[in-house]
Amino acid sequence: MAETSTTTVGQSYGRLEGHAKVTGRADYIYNLRLPSMLHAKIHRSPIGHGRINSIDVSAAAAMPGVHMVVTGEDVKTVLPEPYYGPAFHDQPILALDKVRHFGEPVAAVLAADPHIAERAARLIVVDYEELPAVYDEIEALDSEAIVHEELKPAGTFADLKHLSGRRDTNVALDFHLRLGDADKAFAEAVHVFEHTFRTQQTMHTPFEPMVAIADVTHDRAIIHSSTQSPSFVRFELSRLLGWPESNVRVRTGHLGGGFGAKVYVKVEALALALSMLAHRPVRVAQTMEEQFYTITKHPSTFRIRSAVDDDGRIVGRKCEVWWNGGAYADIGPRVTQKSGFTAAGPYDIENIDIDSFALYTNRPPAGALRGFGIPQLVWAYESHTDIIARELGIDPIDFRKRNILRDGRPQAVGTIVEDGEFEPVLDETARRLGWDRPYDKGEGAKRRGRGVAIGFKASISPTTSSAIVSVNADGSVIVYCSTVDMGQGSDTAMAQIAAEVLDIPLDRIRVVNPDTDVTPYDMSTLGSRSTFHMGHAVRLAAADAKEKLVAMAEEIGMPEGSNAPLPELFIKKFGMRAGTIVGTANFKPDYAPTDPETGLSPNATPFWMIGATGAEVEVDTETGQFTILRMINVCDVGKPINPAVVETQLSGAAVMQLGFTTTERMILENGQLTNPSLADYKVPGIFDMPVIMENGMIEAEQHNGPFGAKGAGESGTFGVSPAIANAIEDAVGVRIAEMPITAEAIFRALRAKDGAPLEED
Amino acid sequence: MAETSTTTVGQSYGRLEGHAKVTGRADYIYNLRLPSMLHAKIHRSPIGHGRINSIDVSAAAAMPGVHMVVTGEDVKTVLPEPYYGPAFHDQPILALDKVRHFGEPVAAVLAADPHIAERAARLIVVDYEELPAVYDEIEALDSEAIVHEELKPAGTFADLKHLSGRRDTNVALDFHLRLGDADKAFAEAVHVFEHTFRTQQTMHTPFEPMVAIADVTHDRAIIHSSTQSPSFVRFELSRLLGWPESNVRVRTGHLGGGFGAKVYVKVEALALALSMLAHRPVRVAQTMEEQFYTITKHPSTFRIRSAVDDDGRIVGRKCEVWWNGGAYADIGPRVTQKSGFTAAGPYDIENIDIDSFALYTNRPPAGALRGFGIPQLVWAYESHTDIIARELGIDPIDFRKRNILRDGRPQAVGTIVEDGEFEPVLDETARRLGWDRPYDKGEGAKRRGRGVAIGFKASISPTTSSAIVSVNADGSVIVYCSTVDMGQGSDTAMAQIAAEVLDIPLDRIRVVNPDTDVTPYDMSTLGSRSTFHMGHAVRLAAADAKEKLVAMAEEIGMPEGSNAPLPELFIKKFGMRAGTIVGTANFKPDYAPTDPETGLSPNATPFWMIGATGAEVEVDTETGQFTILRMINVCDVGKPINPAVVETQLSGAAVMQLGFTTTERMILENGQLTNPSLADYKVPGIFDMPVIMENGMIEAEQHNGPFGAKGAGESGTFGVSPAIANAIEDAVGVRIAEMPITAEAIFRALRAKDGAPLEED
Repeated sequence: MAETSTTTVGQSYGRLEGHAKVTGRADYIYNLRLPSMLHAKIHRSPIGHGRINSIDVSAAAAMPGVHMVVTGEDVKTVLPEPYYGPAFHDQPILALDKVRHFGEPVAAVLAADPHIAERAARLIVVDYEELPAVYDEIEALDSEAIVHEELKPAGTFADLKHLSGRRDTNVALDFHLRLGDADKAFAEAVHVFEHTFRTQQTMHTPFEPMVAIADVTHDRAIIHSSTQSPSFVRFELSRLLGWPESNVRVRTGHLGGGFGAKVYVKVEALALALSMLAHRPVRVAQTMEEQFYTITKHPSTFRIRSAVDDDGRIVGRKCEVWWNGGAYADIGPRVTQKSGFTAAGPYDIENIDIDSFALYTNRPPAGALRGFGIPQLVWAYESHTDIIARELGIDPIDFRKRNILRDGRPQAVGTIVEDGEFEPVLDETARRLGWDRPYDKGEGAKRRGRGVAIGFKASISPTTSSAIVSVNADGSVIVYCSTVDMGQGSDTAMAQIAAEVLDIPLDRIRVVNPDTDVTPYDMSTLGSRSTFHMGHAVRLAAADAKEKLVAMAEEIGMPEGSNAPLPELFIKKFGMRAGTIVGTANFKPDYAPTDPETGLSPNATPFWMIGATGAEVEVDTETGQFTILRMINVCDVGKPINPAVVETQLSGAAVMQLGFTTTERMILENGQLTNPSLADYKVPGIFDMPVIMENGMIEAEQHNGPFGAKGAGESGTFGVSPAIANAIEDAVGVRIAEMPITAEAIFRALRAKDGAPLEED
Repeated sequence: MAETSTTTVGQSYGRLEGHAKVTGRADYIYNLRLPSMLHAKIHRSPIGHGRINSIDVSAAAAMPGVHMVVTGEDVKTVLPEPYYGPAFHDQPILALDKVRHFGEPVAAVLAADPHIAERAARLIVVDYEELPAVYDEIEALDSEAIVHEELKPAGTFADLKHLSGRRDTNVALDFHLRLGDADKAFAEAVHVFEHTFRTQQTMHTPFEPMVAIADVTHDRAIIHSSTQSPSFVRFELSRLLGWPESNVRVRTGHLGGGFGAKVYVKVEALALALSMLAHRPVRVAQTMEEQFYTITKHPSTFRIRSAVDDDGRIVGRKCEVWWNGGAYADIGPRVTQKSGFTAAGPYDIENIDIDSFALYTNRPPAGALRGFGIPQLVWAYESHTDIIARELGIDPIDFRKRNILRDGRPQAVGTIVEDGEFEPVLDETARRLGWDRPYDKGEGAKRRGRGVAIGFKASISPTTSSAIVSVNADGSVIVYCSTVDMGQGSDTAMAQIAAEVLDIPLDRIRVVNPDTDVTPYDMSTLGSRSTFHMGHAVRLAAADAKEKLVAMAEEIGMPEGSNAPLPELFIKKFGMRAGTIVGTANFKPDYAPTDPETGLSPNATPFWMIGATGAEVEVDTETGQFTILRMINVCDVGKPINPAVVETQLSGAAVMQLGFTTTERMILENGQLTNPSLADYKVPGIFDMPVIMENGMIEAEQHNGPFGAKGAGESGTFGVSPAIANAIEDAVGVRIAEMPITAEAIFRALRAKDGAPLEED
């Protein structure tokens, strides 16, 4: 799409929903109550892996005020195949036969009073036969504990025939990519480096916990849900029900955060089953604690090896990534594939081997979380890259620039890079850091260091977005799209696009909340895909409406160029203020399928997201305590639709990743999560912020994007973790290889470096 | 549209919403409660006409639990011009300066507890200066009581310049039609007949009373309303607010009856204003009593004169109709115009004068009610026609057939009749009555008689309906239209039309409830216009979707005729079950404007509704008590989309009109309504039903209709009242000229005929 001069697009309007949110009138599903609704509370597994011998619900059922107690076997009476999941149909609505992770839902109690339901849920007694369990992704490769004896791949995974049937491994999916001849490159290399990096399990922490209210009648299921994926939830529930999708309605309100936690089916299937059993509306609303048991970020182990020549050119790279998917696959297999292929980093390397494995363990399930696996990969490849540069005595920026991907070169997967501002992002990061200026690294106990890191991500492809743009007879406009505004400002961006195309003021445009009875299909709100995909769909739908308006004007003798106000046009056409002009579009980017043999694809993504971070830290060598003096986040954001909103996406993403880097960690002991609360699980607070934080946007047109735009919701996460680790090494000469980076870890590393054993060791 | 063979259209499917209704799960706005909602209760005028000197709300406001008391002056602080109405902006949201009818809303009390609001509303004290009042439409022509000193015509009435400005008359609108030379015809006529007939004030009695919940924030008004006119309510409230229509949302659920009561704005404007003042959602829900004060059926007086030649041909007819519109115009002026032009009946008369007057009085307002004035007209012209036949000694069927309109001839307004099955309807009525067989008229006190009557109606024109038909990726379909299903089965009919066009089973189609944020424009659900207008719009939108599906199939190499299932088509196009194909259409029938001089129009209606009734009665000459032994309703229904549903429309309409004919009457004493309850105002019960009731459908293709269909929701009302009056005259020789036809009226007429004075006279 050629660059054009715009009036509404490119301006920093305030968010459409801002006033409603700050005045407390915004519509959150968590606040919804329906007449005669029952509350569900869930009895959960206290163990990591075990066979269910029996469930005694008698005490719970006898409690006054309890309407019903439901087990997995009860669910089967209304939904005979009660397994769901986007990649595998592996997750039971309530546990059947066995439990596979601590916190797994085993039974549910329904009551009009949620407190009664909660107390009754504690009275359920389950007799388990404990089974061997596995929690570590490396141990899972070769464990006697087998989490799933059978796999049922879903939908687009169904062609992976090797996955189905009975199994004696915990590998859920393996992805392999081969480019050039890595073995040869390593055999001939001057320098070879190998490191292993690990990341921990964390959680999304949306402040509106997951919630669904199901209201099911004999041929109609209405699901009110704080979901990021209304179209997918409709699809999956209609599959469970065996009903046409038109009989299932999934609607959202505003979302109090999502971050990937609320994609695909989470609490909706349980609400559905319970409403069918109770013949009443049923609300399943999680507590903050319960979210820890529901979906998390993949822990990972990444062994990375590089072959480097004398000029500091990386000539070969071998990547082995093991993703700890927990007890149910959720979308983990896609993380394994779609993020896996970028595991070698944003470098122009001619010989690459990538092996990426999705593993089942007995942890709570892992799925999508802002970055979709990329921050785990960048953590490894940018720590590794920095180590190589330092060991070879090459400036880390210089070393990266010698190897960086540039437009016109193929990425590892075979797709030629276009509109990928890798080098400008790196340069701007260095410029803002003052990389070329002399740097005072401190003395005594307080030492300072600087580090940079750059990462990149493909968008999920090929996916479809559909939109409708309706023009009312008074010239006001309604935009229908299933993109969920969970705080990222998508409603405002879509309104700006429609206003731009139709050339009307923004305040005459409304964007309705996603509702599968109302808004057309969208794959999901994830992967920073909405601005690009739905942006195009809204642009095309608005253009379709515009075309119809022009045709109508010509038909009634008001030719184009007369610029008659829309209300006059409608009155002349319909004899009064009547009629609705409806524009519509489906958008899917061009795509050629991946080669099943090589894993190569000519257009694996319609655009690249690129983000770098520069960090300055000060470390206390006596305690390991550290302060982030500056954090600079620079991203290629295309041409932003709304620059102010895009900038808040960069800082929001960076701060979120900062929490995962320095403070957040789910701690399991014998499979039991010991810190499932915000008192014990530390999300960053105001005092954890960097002293100075800057956001830099490289505004470079994405030529195939709507008005030159691309997605930017995750890019701010990419470089944060390794930039901090690199800065710490720069400051005090120790390398932290496992997240989170804590004072204790630095202290231990400093002691180990000095050869001084720790007291308790 | 050429007749085609259909599979889904023309079949008698059960109603889509039937199961939800009988299981109590149907969605009625009356049942809706919103969080933090306040209930409004209304203080109403106890007099018919008076100036408001002062309103003392102190006692009400001081009552514990009362949130707020609101008067008309308060409303002006949020809506400076708080007058609404479809024809004139004459109706204040709450009374300003004066009250114009008993029961007019004067103030409202808001409370979380509706019982508190109700008690507080009784504590409001209003000081009135009573003004002269007028309640009769004939007296209103020349009364010192002037109901409105000023008129503000709205919208399409705004060009009637003579209506605006200060006034000294109660005529709100006068309509005149001149065809041929009636004066000459009368001067030359062999026979001249003149009669006057009257009808009483009645009410719609929807069993779900009118209700609206408004939820207004700083730039957004959401109105949940049991309205028949979501598009109009949006239009009118956006006008009151000065906001774009996209900022106003009006949604409905199922309606528990409408019958014209719930067209245009009723309680919505008050709910809107109260929510703006309270900054909370506010519910205005009427009791059954309050509906009597809100909207009614026009009382009327009709002086009709006919000039008849020796062959029994009516050569001239003069009609003067006075419509008692009550205190506010509502849509009464349209009744005056649009029904007025058919006042001469379904006869081929070459010289016609029609004068039709809308009058303001101090009665509760009158508006649309199933038939839109036609039953009042048919009451007069078919009583009159029957009297003529009897006086001339011509068989009443024969007399009608000598004069009946036939295809190719112009109706009075100048529109050539097409697809008007007048004669077949009359013939079928006679056939079912056994008109040609000998008839036992009884003896002694019990006398039997037979009567027929035929009426007709134009559809409201030109009006627009818009529809969207979306095809989901699994091949299921959602139909979006703002036609309100209030029991008439329109959802089922629209689904059948979409299923027919798309060639898919009916159970894969969903019709969503009207919601201006969701469903496109429709003029309103009234005037039996939906099957024709929205039927066309849905047909065209489905055809548009079908065309896009065919284009998509061709694009991806699945040519038309391959008949690939829709899900395969979407998967091939979008790579997975993705996308939405959206068809859309606006439909407005051809129309040339009415000649402002003559009142003539070449296409005043896109189709004619025709209905006849045959009645057999038995009258007790000693008491006047009568029994309807048989009632036969025969209508031209075009080609019915769903014959079973159409038949229930015929019987429902006939029974409703039977109530207006024999039992229902609003009784005013000094302007005060004395029977505003279902205990005192008698709607027909099961024992009031005819002993035998038959419904006959003349299925004749309406060539310009969707699949040959036309509207039929009102046709069953037309002939009922005069058929019964005619049968009574046939039985006992007395003519009842004023509705309702009661035992007392017959008794009095019998006594008068015998010359025996009644005791109390």
